[in-house]
Amino acid sequence: MGAFPFTLSATEGGARTGVLHTPRGEIRTPAFMPVGTAGTVKALTVDQVRSSGADILLGNTYHLMLRPTAERISRLGGLHRFMRWERPILTDSGGFQVMSLSDIAKVTDEAVTFKSHLDGSRHVLTPERSIEIQSDLLGSDIAMQLDELVEYPAEEPRARAAMERSLRWGARSKAAFGQRDRQALFGIQQGSTFHPLRAESAERLQEIGFDGYAIGGLAVGEGHGRMAEVLDYAPGQLPADRPRYLMGVGKPLDIVEAVARGVDMFDCVLPTRSGRHGQAWTWDGPLNLRNARFAEDDSPLDEASDCAASRDYSKAYLHHLFRAGEILGQVLLSWHNISFYGALTAAMRAAITEGRFARFRGDFAERQAPGRRGGS
Amino acid sequence: MGAFPFTLSATEGGARTGVLHTPRGEIRTPAFMPVGTAGTVKALTVDQVRSSGADILLGNTYHLMLRPTAERISRLGGLHRFMRWERPILTDSGGFQVMSLSDIAKVTDEAVTFKSHLDGSRHVLTPERSIEIQSDLLGSDIAMQLDELVEYPAEEPRARAAMERSLRWGARSKAAFGQRDRQALFGIQQGSTFHPLRAESAERLQEIGFDGYAIGGLAVGEGHGRMAEVLDYAPGQLPADRPRYLMGVGKPLDIVEAVARGVDMFDCVLPTRSGRHGQAWTWDGPLNLRNARFAEDDSPLDEASDCAASRDYSKAYLHHLFRAGEILGQVLLSWHNISFYGALTAAMRAAITEGRFARFRGDFAERQAPGRRGGS
Repeated sequence: MGAFPFTLSATEGGARTGVLHTPRGEIRTPAFMPVGTAGTVKALTVDQVRSSGADILLGNTYHLMLRPTAERISRLGGLHRFMRWERPILTDSGGFQVMSLSDIAKVTDEAVTFKSHLDGSRHVLTPERSIEIQSDLLGSDIAMQLDELVEYPAEEPRARAAMERSLRWGARSKAAFGQRDRQALFGIQQGSTFHPLRAESAERLQEIGFDGYAIGGLAVGEGHGRMAEVLDYAPGQLPADRPRYLMGVGKPLDIVEAVARGVDMFDCVLPTRSGRHGQAWTWDGPLNLRNARFAEDDSPLDEASDCAASRDYSKAYLHHLFRAGEILGQVLLSWHNISFYGALTAAMRAAITEGRFARFRGDFAERQAPGRRGGS
Repeated sequence: MGAFPFTLSATEGGARTGVLHTPRGEIRTPAFMPVGTAGTVKALTVDQVRSSGADILLGNTYHLMLRPTAERISRLGGLHRFMRWERPILTDSGGFQVMSLSDIAKVTDEAVTFKSHLDGSRHVLTPERSIEIQSDLLGSDIAMQLDELVEYPAEEPRARAAMERSLRWGARSKAAFGQRDRQALFGIQQGSTFHPLRAESAERLQEIGFDGYAIGGLAVGEGHGRMAEVLDYAPGQLPADRPRYLMGVGKPLDIVEAVARGVDMFDCVLPTRSGRHGQAWTWDGPLNLRNARFAEDDSPLDEASDCAASRDYSKAYLHHLFRAGEILGQVLLSWHNISFYGALTAAMRAAITEGRFARFRGDFAERQAPGRRGGS
C-alpha cells in the first residue's frame, strides 16, 4: 500500500529516519516543508529554498484557488512549473484556511460554502473539489483529504462529530482521488485531545487506506504540554510503515519532541513569518535582531552554516536592515530560518542514523530552553 | 593625475569604452552603479547584485550618516565589510539628500545645517565632514565632493552662485581628502542649463584637479530634451583622460544617449524602484507586470539572459506575485532590472569595441520608444 515507497533506514526509540521516494525526488525524513502559501515561500527564490535543504514544499489550496485560481495555474502547466519548483509539493486541502481566514457561510456534510477574504466572492469546497484542485489542477505530489477541525478546547461530542465528518470526507477524498501511480493522498487523524477518539480515527482511516497519515487538529492553542501529551500516543496509533505528518508544527523544540515520538514530516509558517519580523531561530534559541544589543555585534548567526544568510552577514548588519525597514532583512532572515530548520532535520537524521538521538534531543532542549529539559 | 588608472580601449564618435582600475577591482565603462542607499541595494543580496554584472555600487552618505551612523560602520570595519560587498563603492557627498529629504535649517558657505528626516536630530555637513565620512569612516573607493544643487528652472545668478559655491566646496573637499593612493575623489560640474557656467565650472574644477569628474545638476526636472542639450556640450568640457560620471541618470534611453556623448558612469534608483513597483525594463521598453495582459503570459522577461529572474520565471508568475503583494515579486523584478541595466552597459561596451555603436544606438532607441529616434 502507498503510491510512494517509504524506506526506514534507522530507528532509535520512537524516532525514525528514512526516505519517501517520489517521482519528483526523494524526501528525506524527518523532513521540514517550508510553506509556499501563495505560490512562493515568502520572500525567497526557489534556489534559496532548495539551498536550505528542503526536499519538498507545501502549497496552500485555499490561497491558490482564490488567486490566481487553480484553473489558471493548470492552464500555465501546474504549480511546479508556475513557481519553478521541480521537486515534490504537498498541498493542503484548503479546509484549515477556509475555517481561519474566510467568512464561512455554511458547513454541511456535503460542502463548505464560504466567501473569499480577498473580494467576498462565494466559493464551495467539497472533498471532491479539493482533490480536483490539488491533484488535477495544481498537480501536487501529495494531496491532503478535506477534514474538519475543532478549536481547542472542544467538548467530546463536538470533537467526535468533527472526527466522524472528517472520516466521511476522507472516504470521499479517497474515492475522488482513485488510484494514481505518481501522486499520493494522505488521510488526517482528528479527535482533539481525546485518546479514544484519536484511536478510533486512526483505525477507521486505515480501513479507508491512505498513502500517509497526518496528525491534525494540534497547534490550535492547546499549548506545548497538551500537544506533547497527544503526541505520546497519536503517532503510535498510525501505521509504522507509512509517513506520519504533524500538520502546522512548529517551534524547533516541538519538532524535535515530535520526532522523538515517531513523526516524520512537518510544515509551519513560523520560520518565514518570524524571519519577516526580525526573529532568528538558532541552536541557542530565538534571537530578536531588532534588539539594541546586536547593533555592533559583528558575528554572523551561524558561521558553520552552508547558508550565506547565516554565515556571511553580521548580526549588526541584520539589525541595521530591520531598523531601517529594508526588504533584504526579511529576505536574509527568512532564508536563515528555513536553513536552520533544514539543518535541524539533517542533524536529527544523522543522530538517529548514528544511534545518538537521545543525547541530541537532551542537548538541544537544554540549549533551546535552558532549564527546561525535553521529554515529558 | 588620478589615483586610479583609466584606460580607454575604444571610441566611436563621442562614445568610449575602457576600464577604471581600482585596488578593489576593475570598473568596466560605460558602467552602471546600482544604488545601495542604506547599505543595501534594496531587496537584493550582494550575490544577486554581483551577478547582474555590476562592478561598483553607490552608497548614500546622508542615509548612512544618520543610520546606523558612519562611526558605527567604521567600528564594524567599514562599509564594504558591513554590507559584504568587496568590490568598489562610490559614495555621494550627502548633499543631494540633505537638500531633498531633510529639513534644512541653514546653508552658508561654511556648512549645511539640517534636521534628520528620521528623528529630527540636528546635523552639520561641511565639505570636510563629508570627506571624513566617505573616505575615513565608510572607507569608500570613490568619494564625491560636496556641492550645491539648484532646482530647475533656475535664474542665471542663482545658478552661478551655486556653481561658485560648489567650486569653493570642491577645493575644500580636495584639501581635506589630500593625497591618497587607494582612494579617489571626484569633482562635480554645476551650472544648470547655462553653457558658459558649465564651461567655467569645468575649467576651474580641473585647476583644482580631481580623479574624475561628474556632471551634476541634471535629472532635476528639466526633461529629456534639455538634458540632452546640456549633454551635447558638458562631457566635452571635462577632461577626456578621466572618467565622466552623470549623476542620477536614468532611463535606459537616457543612458545610451549620454554614452553617445562621452559619459562613462551612471547611477540611478530607477531599476530598483521600478522593480519594487512592478515595472520591468526590457529591450523593448518598460512593462507593467501588474497589467492583466500578463496574467497568463507564460514567457519569461528575457529568455536569453544570464539572470535567473529574467530567464526562469514567467510573466504570469511575476504578475501573480505583484497582485498578491508578495515580496518575491519585488526581489525578482529588482534583480531583473539591474541585470537589464548591466546587460545594457555590457552591450554598449561591446558595440563601441566593435565599432557598431551608432547602429546599436539607433536600434535601441527605436525599440525603446518606437517612433522616437535617438539623437538630438
